[in-house]
Amino acid sequence: MSNLKVKPIILAEQIQTSLTNLEPLTRKAFLSLIPPSLLDNRADVDQVRQALEANYGSVSVPLSLMSGIPGICRRASWQVTATLADTGNGWNLIELESGDTTKAQFGLAIDIGTTTVVVYLVDLCDGTVLNHAADYNDQITLGEDILNRIRHAAEPGGLARLQKAVVDTLNRLIRRLCPLPMETGKITAVAIGANTTMVHLLLGLNPASICRAPYTPVVNNPGLIPAGEIGLDIHPLAPVYCLPSIGSYLGGDVIGGILVSGMYKQPGVSLFVDIGTNGEIVMGNEEWLVACAGAAGPALEGGVTTYGMRAEPGAVDRVAIDPDTGKVKYTTIANMPARGICGSGLVDVLAELFLNGIIGRTARFQNGQEAFVVVPATEAASGEDIVVTQIDINNFMATKGATNAATDVLMESVGCAWQEMSHFYAAGAFGQYLPIESAVTIGLYPDLPRSAIVRLGNSSGEGARQVLLSRTKRLEAEAIAAKVTYFELNANPSFMEKFVSSKFLPHTDLDRYPSVKLRLQTRSLPVNAHAE
Amino acid sequence: MSNLKVKPIILAEQIQTSLTNLEPLTRKAFLSLIPPSLLDNRADVDQVRQALEANYGSVSVPLSLMSGIPGICRRASWQVTATLADTGNGWNLIELESGDTTKAQFGLAIDIGTTTVVVYLVDLCDGTVLNHAADYNDQITLGEDILNRIRHAAEPGGLARLQKAVVDTLNRLIRRLCPLPMETGKITAVAIGANTTMVHLLLGLNPASICRAPYTPVVNNPGLIPAGEIGLDIHPLAPVYCLPSIGSYLGGDVIGGILVSGMYKQPGVSLFVDIGTNGEIVMGNEEWLVACAGAAGPALEGGVTTYGMRAEPGAVDRVAIDPDTGKVKYTTIANMPARGICGSGLVDVLAELFLNGIIGRTARFQNGQEAFVVVPATEAASGEDIVVTQIDINNFMATKGATNAATDVLMESVGCAWQEMSHFYAAGAFGQYLPIESAVTIGLYPDLPRSAIVRLGNSSGEGARQVLLSRTKRLEAEAIAAKVTYFELNANPSFMEKFVSSKFLPHTDLDRYPSVKLRLQTRSLPVNAHAE
Repeated sequence: MSNLKVKPIILAEQIQTSLTNLEPLTRKAFLSLIPPSLLDNRADVDQVRQALEANYGSVSVPLSLMSGIPGICRRASWQVTATLADTGNGWNLIELESGDTTKAQFGLAIDIGTTTVVVYLVDLCDGTVLNHAADYNDQITLGEDILNRIRHAAEPGGLARLQKAVVDTLNRLIRRLCPLPMETGKITAVAIGANTTMVHLLLGLNPASICRAPYTPVVNNPGLIPAGEIGLDIHPLAPVYCLPSIGSYLGGDVIGGILVSGMYKQPGVSLFVDIGTNGEIVMGNEEWLVACAGAAGPALEGGVTTYGMRAEPGAVDRVAIDPDTGKVKYTTIANMPARGICGSGLVDVLAELFLNGIIGRTARFQNGQEAFVVVPATEAASGEDIVVTQIDINNFMATKGATNAATDVLMESVGCAWQEMSHFYAAGAFGQYLPIESAVTIGLYPDLPRSAIVRLGNSSGEGARQVLLSRTKRLEAEAIAAKVTYFELNANPSFMEKFVSSKFLPHTDLDRYPSVKLRLQTRSLPVNAHAE
Repeated sequence: MSNLKVKPIILAEQIQTSLTNLEPLTRKAFLSLIPPSLLDNRADVDQVRQALEANYGSVSVPLSLMSGIPGICRRASWQVTATLADTGNGWNLIELESGDTTKAQFGLAIDIGTTTVVVYLVDLCDGTVLNHAADYNDQITLGEDILNRIRHAAEPGGLARLQKAVVDTLNRLIRRLCPLPMETGKITAVAIGANTTMVHLLLGLNPASICRAPYTPVVNNPGLIPAGEIGLDIHPLAPVYCLPSIGSYLGGDVIGGILVSGMYKQPGVSLFVDIGTNGEIVMGNEEWLVACAGAAGPALEGGVTTYGMRAEPGAVDRVAIDPDTGKVKYTTIANMPARGICGSGLVDVLAELFLNGIIGRTARFQNGQEAFVVVPATEAASGEDIVVTQIDINNFMATKGATNAATDVLMESVGCAWQEMSHFYAAGAFGQYLPIESAVTIGLYPDLPRSAIVRLGNSSGEGARQVLLSRTKRLEAEAIAAKVTYFELNANPSFMEKFVSSKFLPHTDLDRYPSVKLRLQTRSLPVNAHAE
């Protein structure tokens, strides 16, 4: 597995929230205890509990810790630091250390994607991300997408293999962040953003019912689970919190996105879209939230286009076509010789093909050609032309069409018009790297004032960081999960109708894309698809 | 090990409390869940938690249970029974069963004595004791008394051996109560009354500091511990609650006694005495409680007198001497040929020797003899005379003297006179089998109106039963533990003085024993010790 390059959590300035009031999942308290004497010979464990009582109420002490407490207290001359884990209903003592270690408190915010896993090492004292590491999810070898993983889980030993694969991935990333085993034991809290299937596989829960009507997961909100029970190589009693799911097809990763966007607290209606292997769309405001989800196809992740590739060194990531000369200019990640085209590159190529009249509003090559050369063979790493074909474009159009259709169905269902939309939040890879203008041009992003288009970046990871650090955010995440109304697209006849008709660039209804219409007109390109 | 005969929990009528409001440590709730459909496809675990929310708040579900829940719900057609364990800060789901099993809820009330272990099987639905079993504590082979056990715990592997011994004893008794392993898994709650050392050894905690100044235990109130962590062969998640200790020498067994007596709720001052291998004395009322403790010697448990034995078949348990003929009448347990004398028999023998002028107020044989034949060789199982010797009497007098002296020190310390004493509570074997009149005659019990003398029986076991069944009682037990002021006898110079002077029958100050004085006078026996 390669060492994936993933940017740290990047948030648009508009929503860069600073958590002023840190209430992390685990906390530390320095205790200056009283050396026992005949006048005060309380039991050691009781004295520790009593010292914590004022701030933490009745603290539970696991039996596994009790026997070590007398020795630690005496060696530390009764100056000790307690680590306390939130149980949801009070606090558990999970560690007692010599001296004052309150400045060393670490947690992990984790984004487990079907494809990519990112682990952020977070300083629980100030909330900053100290370091991060990313890699492919080892489960890929057992099944490329969610359905194949669920299928694999049904095979003998399959569920255990899938669980081991993701735990191995996480432990490899944790070791990369903290090379010394002693240090990993100092990680005492974990929050995870992941889709429902990923959470089931991490916890070793059978995901079979997720893809079978009535699509009932085993659990949406697993609560707090000790890391040792999952097999994570950190403090075994560290609480692991998974952002709650709403159902089989709307996971904690989406809840994290809604949380990070802040749309659930705003009076204006916003649209939240995350398109990865699956696509999720959420719409709403401070009063209501509706959502839908479906398979999006990995068009944007580079999985299905002929020269598609992930955002790795050698991927063409930005493309422009000179309108006068027709010459293609491009950049590659890490400036390596081009090996393929990643999502942002594809979006640029399609927008530039469209704006230069090479493909029309029906997304078909106008001159009968079957492919467009982005990188000539002489410049490509493989010595072959890197092209975008009509089939690639058709695949992309299917993804875009499904997204547009789903959005339209949601908007219709709540009786909301595009004009009323106050913000558009783009999450995940879909919201981290895509060039905004090109994405609007081909109808992937709506044609809103650019200040209303917010790219959330890895909002699943950032949502995890926020609930790791804030009890208030955790309760808000659970309130969001309880509030979202899930909209079943398959049960909706107008979805297919809209999907079939969503085959134009940027949209069937060009009037929804005034800036694109203007640009087409400026370039004297046809605005009427039927004229093609 | 023999199959010890122990009576069920016997309470004097005065204090027979019926727990009208059962709030057991674990509870069951029958849930009629909704079969999932596309209209309501909540996750299975979430639906169970939501069904419990109204009565139990936010219930934690351990990961180990989650994977089984979908299957149980479906096989049970969504009619299931949840078992919930009190965590002190909310409820944990520990079991989910098919159908309505709310009528089958079982717990254990356990008295772990240094010598004897008693397990009561309790119906959590109505609080009744269904069955009980008793046996010697297997730890005896590793050390006869507490100090020897603490010494053994310091040897390599000693602590683990001691823990295994008591856990083995408990598991053997549990199997005797529930021969089928399937049935023991239905035991879902445990409460234990035991002294501080027994609790440490049960939990595998080092007891070394208990017998070293400043006598600081590892823990006085261990909270709720899953049975599986201790190794009990019952439901592994069953919460185990140990009655809290006050310190190294005042354990949960005594707290159980105070709880059962009700003295902590009464306006009048009461005295509570438990004399086993160790002796504990508590005095107080609804406003204050003082206590002291010390080694009592096993005089009353039959351990040190020449023909002393435990209350087993063949033990002489009641004795009378005909004042006219001098002939001894006695009974034995189970009417077996006499093998020795148990505590109640010894108390009778001493009282009868005293009331017949065979020993005087100084507890010495008046005619120069060295021993008194209780059972002649012809009637004894061994074919030898069963006798009580002057040395046996002296040993008993040391135990009695220590108890009297300790009581006097306590009374002096709080400025309380015998006349003010509203009740005398006798606990343990000391309060279950001893004949009241004989015990008063020799000064072991105070000479109060007989209605004020209450024998609590196994108040450690009954205290355990009460906290098993009642959250209110559990909080009261913890409030008692926080309230008792411990009085260090060794630090008190007047204790030794009083001990040395407490060498008379029934007491140095005969005026404290008006009924005994009257009886002596009736029989024309000397009331002035110095006249002997």
